[in-house]
Amino acid sequence: MLFRSTAAYTQLEARFKRLALVRESASLLEWDMQTLMPSGGAAARTEQLAALSVMAHELLTDAKTGDLLNSAAAPNGLDAWQQANLRVMTREWRHASAVPADLVEARSKANSECEMRWRTARPANDFKGLLPLLQRVLDLARETAAAKGEALGLDPYDALIDQYEPGARQAEITPLFDQLAGVLPDLITRILDKQARGPATRKPAGPFPAAKQMALARRLMEAVGFDFNHGRLDTSAHPFCSGVPDDIRMTTRWNEADFLPGLMGVLHETGHAMYERGLPQKWRSQPVGGALGMGLHESQSLIVEMQASRSRDFIAWLAPQAAEAFGGSGAEWSADNLVRIYGKVARSLIRVDADEVTYPCHIILRYRLEQALIGDQLKLGDLPGAWAEGMRALLDIVPTDDKDGCLQDIHWPGGGFGYFPSYTLGAMNAAQLFDAAKRAKPEIPASLGCGDFAPLMAWLRENVHSKGSLLNAHELLTEATGKPLDPQVFLGHLRARYLDA
Amino acid sequence: MLFRSTAAYTQLEARFKRLALVRESASLLEWDMQTLMPSGGAAARTEQLAALSVMAHELLTDAKTGDLLNSAAAPNGLDAWQQANLRVMTREWRHASAVPADLVEARSKANSECEMRWRTARPANDFKGLLPLLQRVLDLARETAAAKGEALGLDPYDALIDQYEPGARQAEITPLFDQLAGVLPDLITRILDKQARGPATRKPAGPFPAAKQMALARRLMEAVGFDFNHGRLDTSAHPFCSGVPDDIRMTTRWNEADFLPGLMGVLHETGHAMYERGLPQKWRSQPVGGALGMGLHESQSLIVEMQASRSRDFIAWLAPQAAEAFGGSGAEWSADNLVRIYGKVARSLIRVDADEVTYPCHIILRYRLEQALIGDQLKLGDLPGAWAEGMRALLDIVPTDDKDGCLQDIHWPGGGFGYFPSYTLGAMNAAQLFDAAKRAKPEIPASLGCGDFAPLMAWLRENVHSKGSLLNAHELLTEATGKPLDPQVFLGHLRARYLDA
Repeated sequence: MLFRSTAAYTQLEARFKRLALVRESASLLEWDMQTLMPSGGAAARTEQLAALSVMAHELLTDAKTGDLLNSAAAPNGLDAWQQANLRVMTREWRHASAVPADLVEARSKANSECEMRWRTARPANDFKGLLPLLQRVLDLARETAAAKGEALGLDPYDALIDQYEPGARQAEITPLFDQLAGVLPDLITRILDKQARGPATRKPAGPFPAAKQMALARRLMEAVGFDFNHGRLDTSAHPFCSGVPDDIRMTTRWNEADFLPGLMGVLHETGHAMYERGLPQKWRSQPVGGALGMGLHESQSLIVEMQASRSRDFIAWLAPQAAEAFGGSGAEWSADNLVRIYGKVARSLIRVDADEVTYPCHIILRYRLEQALIGDQLKLGDLPGAWAEGMRALLDIVPTDDKDGCLQDIHWPGGGFGYFPSYTLGAMNAAQLFDAAKRAKPEIPASLGCGDFAPLMAWLRENVHSKGSLLNAHELLTEATGKPLDPQVFLGHLRARYLDA
Repeated sequence: MLFRSTAAYTQLEARFKRLALVRESASLLEWDMQTLMPSGGAAARTEQLAALSVMAHELLTDAKTGDLLNSAAAPNGLDAWQQANLRVMTREWRHASAVPADLVEARSKANSECEMRWRTARPANDFKGLLPLLQRVLDLARETAAAKGEALGLDPYDALIDQYEPGARQAEITPLFDQLAGVLPDLITRILDKQARGPATRKPAGPFPAAKQMALARRLMEAVGFDFNHGRLDTSAHPFCSGVPDDIRMTTRWNEADFLPGLMGVLHETGHAMYERGLPQKWRSQPVGGALGMGLHESQSLIVEMQASRSRDFIAWLAPQAAEAFGGSGAEWSADNLVRIYGKVARSLIRVDADEVTYPCHIILRYRLEQALIGDQLKLGDLPGAWAEGMRALLDIVPTDDKDGCLQDIHWPGGGFGYFPSYTLGAMNAAQLFDAAKRAKPEIPASLGCGDFAPLMAWLRENVHSKGSLLNAHELLTEATGKPLDPQVFLGHLRARYLDA
């Protein structure tokens, strides 16, 4: 029995390794498609990606995988990492095999069609026109949620969240988000009052040539610890970070009128990259060697972008570097001015442009709405009204049209229900991990003031990156910071940075 | 029965399409590895490529493929393209399933090790040091040749040639090569005499910045007909052409001291690219939609590089373009001088540097030697002596060391026995196809004189590219040119260009 279960486990490792290698290959094909591929290659690339995706799905869901998981289920003789690997394998297999193949296919088709239509419907402010396709996407997402929920013993919306955030449940998320929603509206008002009384910001004058932004971005990436022997930075329409731990492919885009979004985008993606790069070498291409979930992934990008790089310490180091890189001088290049620019808070309609204080309000709105959509308490036709109502309550600002309201995000048209909570779970995790890192290594702020991320990264590598998926998110955060996720740490960070500083 | 065989055929199409898509994916991964990948990504990439290669091999050789081929063997109800598709599928399957998996693996390992060692053994002139690894490579190649020969009913060396050149046999190649070998030594002497009496060449002075070479190369590619919406040009240590017909990935390298090798390299690869691009759209990702063999592929690159681009007509158009691109002037930029540089013939030791007149001698030498090695009439230890003897007979020049002799090529250390004949089959095909094209479209030389390849490419697309693998090479050449492969056309081309002009 012992022999049988370890033999099955060994076969599972081989099978999941192959699965990982197929997905890694697909990821490189996608990276190429976003960065370098000539437009005429799109049809062929789509077919290649579809073939790899089907082969990966078959590897994961065929009967043999289930048999092996059953045989290996009594994990005697497996060490802690192997047991965790088996747990992550089982979870992945359950998610994949819960949904019948024809539903997977119908959903993939409906999501593509709706996402394609959304690309024109959004600028045209045409919610009505999108509605039939979006309804189909929602119906199939609800069907998927029901199927996964039944297989996993979960509420349907929990089953969707679980895809991105293993183990996270509304029962924990809702109280956390309610705490934030109870505090943020008033906190935002106080911060805006304070900022209105402070000195005006002075925007450095451009243009900022892309080549100079690229050169500065590469220096910042190296400061964070990115190793260009193990990765690249390229440009793409939508910045992302993909690749494998030994060959990270980061992309960004440049706005020649303003260098801040590009640099901050690079710092954000570098945080993702450092997580991938620090995953356990020994478990490469095994499930347990992968990232723990989207919230923890987002926490790593936010630690670099929001916690570290928008700190006064770091900006004091950055200011003269940026001035030199762009040949700027004068008061608009002072650290004080850049701190004010970086820390500007505003009630705005668009999530992706939001600052870290108002951002959670955008997420809480979407969380509540998709919860109601999946639970069928809200009809799609009533979404614009519910959106306006939620924005008024959380941010005291209401969109005048749908393109700046419920049409703004690609997530729902693309079928991505259940993903939004990860952003704000990430922000709270980031605050709590950064706080713990500074307590463990009090030299971190001063080292950031010298453009040196090494102490921070060493702590993250030891306490987060190198753990892969050995623990669940709750265990990892508790081990690393001494307590479970506590929104007060995030709120404390906001008060300290925006009210007390 | 009819129903059964067409149903099996339909399943084979699906299976071979998936196989093609996996190989296309691997090809993009390899392209990336050669052009962009950071060095630290090599280990992960090697694993990804190995996984895709194993999966492709399994798709091709598993029992189901054989069953389907048997069921589809009575091709009633299939049209000519489908029948040809079935023929190419069967051929591929026979080659792949003839060799036991452990031999495939042992060979892959031995070839990699020997090739790696060759990279240092060649500059060190260390034939003795390479010998044990090379012996292992040869032994496994012979074992493979025997296995394939038995399965295909072929002489072992024929079975190796057949991998690259479907249907080609020593019984036809040897007399063709013997004809060349009977004529070339004397022809070379006469050409060298003539060139020695002519005006000296004057080399344009560099440096020639890589960016300027790239810009000119892109213009030449467009002149040939390359569509940058369906492909890219990048740089790599060893130029190649890969990708898929709708997304061709060409690479080259630049020598800033001399612009001719880089430009000619680009023109050569563009010929390969135009073949791939012109393959039948309707049969994309099916075996019959692929190129016919390496010799015909090489003929397409040589038509562009050797036949068209080294013609006086084309060089007369190119000369002022090149002078302008590099800011050159004076007699060394005249068409006459460039024609002499392009047409310079020399007895040289190194195949890859050889001109089109002496090149076949290098190939015939290798053909005879590998024939004897595979047939076990020649022992590896005697190779250096046999090499010197062959060089003396064919080219009247003898290497003083092995690094410029039998160690110069990567083919044998990498296990590539049977490939060499394709180069000279390609050169003969190129001459015969170009000759037929000019007879069918007498405007071709004048259009090349205007930098316009369109008439030539239209003829090639109709008579070669669009045929895919519908015909065998013999049928294709006969249909396109009115007769089977005739070395006199190639020899006539050499006389006309190098003696009569």
